[in-house]
Amino acid sequence: MRPQDLIEKKRDGGELTAAEIALLVRGYTAGEIPDYQMAAWLMAGLLRGLSDGETAALVEEMLHSGIVLEHPDLGLPTVDKHSTGGVGDKTSLVVAPAAAACGVAVPMISGRALAHTGGTLDKLEAIPGFRTNLTLEEFRQVLAECGLALIGQTAEIAPADRKLYALRDLTGTVPFRPYICASIMSKKLAEGIDGLVLDVKTGNGAFMREDEDARALARMMVGVGQRMGKRVTALITDMNQPLGRWVGNAVETAEAIATLRGDLRGDFAALSIELTARMLQVGGVVGDLAQARQQATEAIRSGAALERFQRVIERQGGDPRVVDDPQRLAQGRYQRTVRARRAGTVVGIETAEVGRIVMDWGGGRKRLGDPIDYGVGLEIQARLGQEVAVGDPLVTAWYNDPSLVDQMETRLAAAWKIAESPRPVPPLIREVM
Amino acid sequence: MRPQDLIEKKRDGGELTAAEIALLVRGYTAGEIPDYQMAAWLMAGLLRGLSDGETAALVEEMLHSGIVLEHPDLGLPTVDKHSTGGVGDKTSLVVAPAAAACGVAVPMISGRALAHTGGTLDKLEAIPGFRTNLTLEEFRQVLAECGLALIGQTAEIAPADRKLYALRDLTGTVPFRPYICASIMSKKLAEGIDGLVLDVKTGNGAFMREDEDARALARMMVGVGQRMGKRVTALITDMNQPLGRWVGNAVETAEAIATLRGDLRGDFAALSIELTARMLQVGGVVGDLAQARQQATEAIRSGAALERFQRVIERQGGDPRVVDDPQRLAQGRYQRTVRARRAGTVVGIETAEVGRIVMDWGGGRKRLGDPIDYGVGLEIQARLGQEVAVGDPLVTAWYNDPSLVDQMETRLAAAWKIAESPRPVPPLIREVM
Repeated sequence: MRPQDLIEKKRDGGELTAAEIALLVRGYTAGEIPDYQMAAWLMAGLLRGLSDGETAALVEEMLHSGIVLEHPDLGLPTVDKHSTGGVGDKTSLVVAPAAAACGVAVPMISGRALAHTGGTLDKLEAIPGFRTNLTLEEFRQVLAECGLALIGQTAEIAPADRKLYALRDLTGTVPFRPYICASIMSKKLAEGIDGLVLDVKTGNGAFMREDEDARALARMMVGVGQRMGKRVTALITDMNQPLGRWVGNAVETAEAIATLRGDLRGDFAALSIELTARMLQVGGVVGDLAQARQQATEAIRSGAALERFQRVIERQGGDPRVVDDPQRLAQGRYQRTVRARRAGTVVGIETAEVGRIVMDWGGGRKRLGDPIDYGVGLEIQARLGQEVAVGDPLVTAWYNDPSLVDQMETRLAAAWKIAESPRPVPPLIREVM
Repeated sequence: MRPQDLIEKKRDGGELTAAEIALLVRGYTAGEIPDYQMAAWLMAGLLRGLSDGETAALVEEMLHSGIVLEHPDLGLPTVDKHSTGGVGDKTSLVVAPAAAACGVAVPMISGRALAHTGGTLDKLEAIPGFRTNLTLEEFRQVLAECGLALIGQTAEIAPADRKLYALRDLTGTVPFRPYICASIMSKKLAEGIDGLVLDVKTGNGAFMREDEDARALARMMVGVGQRMGKRVTALITDMNQPLGRWVGNAVETAEAIATLRGDLRGDFAALSIELTARMLQVGGVVGDLAQARQQATEAIRSGAALERFQRVIERQGGDPRVVDDPQRLAQGRYQRTVRARRAGTVVGIETAEVGRIVMDWGGGRKRLGDPIDYGVGLEIQARLGQEVAVGDPLVTAWYNDPSLVDQMETRLAAAWKIAESPRPVPPLIREVM
């Protein structure tokens, strides 16, 4: 069977067998099927749709395109958490050490900032010296010693996904659930995990703006994970405002440290505890949810989670003193506060725009390899549902490039919607699957 | 606007502006847009559909991707004929010299065999020495001197089509009317013609097996031609059996010569005269159709058409003696006749299979550049509607490779369907638009 036969089959609405999907993904990864044939197939799949069986076969082939880790010597259940991407979402920095402190191992492979959303790797690299590019051997060692390890995707993990993602990005084939599902699940399952907690974001700061899309993606990922014998839980969570008080790289790392130091106020800490509890459940170390939440909270309050985080920072080459002295993290030299020009209630925050402002001010990359200004950050001072008087602070920016300040101030002011009458604030956790 | 924006627009069912189509085709032809982006766009277009405006813009851009010829010094209307491809279709070899003899100039750029269908260039090259790869300058000279010239596509003519066709062939995006229309019309309009006669084949030996598909393609091509100020006529003609008595390269050239020598029996001569008459009409040299048919017939009977053909053969490097002595054309050394095993009426001929048998026996290429065995040919002895007794000849093969004879005999025998009761024979010309 030639690649064009598989393209024609999908073009005409046919369903490919697992063997046919294998031919396609293996041939493409090996460089035998050229980009242009894969691009035509991807577009045909997007417009004709993929069955559950095709999606599962795609995940399976992408997963096995590289090394699939195993951790038999750890003697611990292995669990990870994955978020579909948001603004101010630094939960990984809290849940990984907290879950590790509760007796599950967390072999976490994360990504960088994408579009308006931040990336765990960039936040970790805000810690001076922190290396996210460990070899797989180093990754295993850190995991064994700390109960968690935090790295970026390597060439050995799901190489088919790396190649496919780059192609999708240029051929209009990114926004399609089966491809998104396959990309996420192939990478996560390659970590060699027993259980997975998915945090699927919905709202104006998420990639899935509509609830129904987020739910459908979550259902698909849970289904794929279960088919492969994994325990998977998905939470649909709100992304209609930044998560927590800070948006940026170093400022979010500092906020995560503050949470690990016991500051459990606010939505960010609440979500971190909920996600940790769910990780303990899918890891099978705690059966009862209320008990799992309590263990997660206790791991933070006792300092055990913070100790794990400090250990992993040191082990991965970072400066462990940041844990006791967050001033060692970068912070913008200048600051400007944007204030309410009218009284009322905050009824909307353009969350994606908030993320883009941080990126555009130096907190993100325009091109691969660009340096990041880790010190750029926004302190969110007025959240949805909050009443404000004229002159009350909405958001304070910390920055290093003053040439952009007026433009950014205008954009920030426009991102906050204030109205006379309050509107219902969406709940943080919409649904658990 | 980036190429991926144009892909996304089409993916989401949008209609591209002429400027956007221009960006795409020009960028692709110039090598600035890579194959994989074009492949994704082509598949999105095929599955989402193209509007008439988009199709017209595509033709326009492909046409102007290279040189568009003009023939102001000829002082004659310029006309061409194009067939969508069939089995035994050698009409170009008759209509081009016949029309030229009646006072229109025919700057004909033809193709090679494709799938099961024969190609005009291959039939011309069966004439010893005949060169179809003239430069455009030589093409113009031959056209001026003979009133016709017969060449293959050059690098200067519609280069976008060459590149797009190669890509479509490998990405499952060939069978889509707007692309087929754009491919044909961009090349034909680049010849610098005033009028065009399209012979759109339908039936089991055509690319469009269904009548309705053939009609829709014909309508689209006529519409595009008229939008661009050309006089275009389309004939829908039957391809449920080979056209004429012979299928092959040298044998078809010999049959065309016999027709030009005045043998006007049968469907092939009838269609040749009809197409010539329509060429005279769109060229504006004869208004009345009956009169045009008579002029076409007279051009053949008088020997004027044959004389034009001989002149163009000589001028393009071929051996002009083949016109008087067709024995100079190649002919298979061996022959085998396939006979009826039952009495009845011929109710079906697997026309595409007949074409493939010639190709597989050496009359076509497996790969670009393969040599052709010009002597391979089939003489069709039993046509649709013909009554046969047991032992009557159905078809005689002329061949040079005896190792394939039993296999081919089996295939040929299976291609003729004989039944007790006759079935209606489809008319040769179904419709004229």
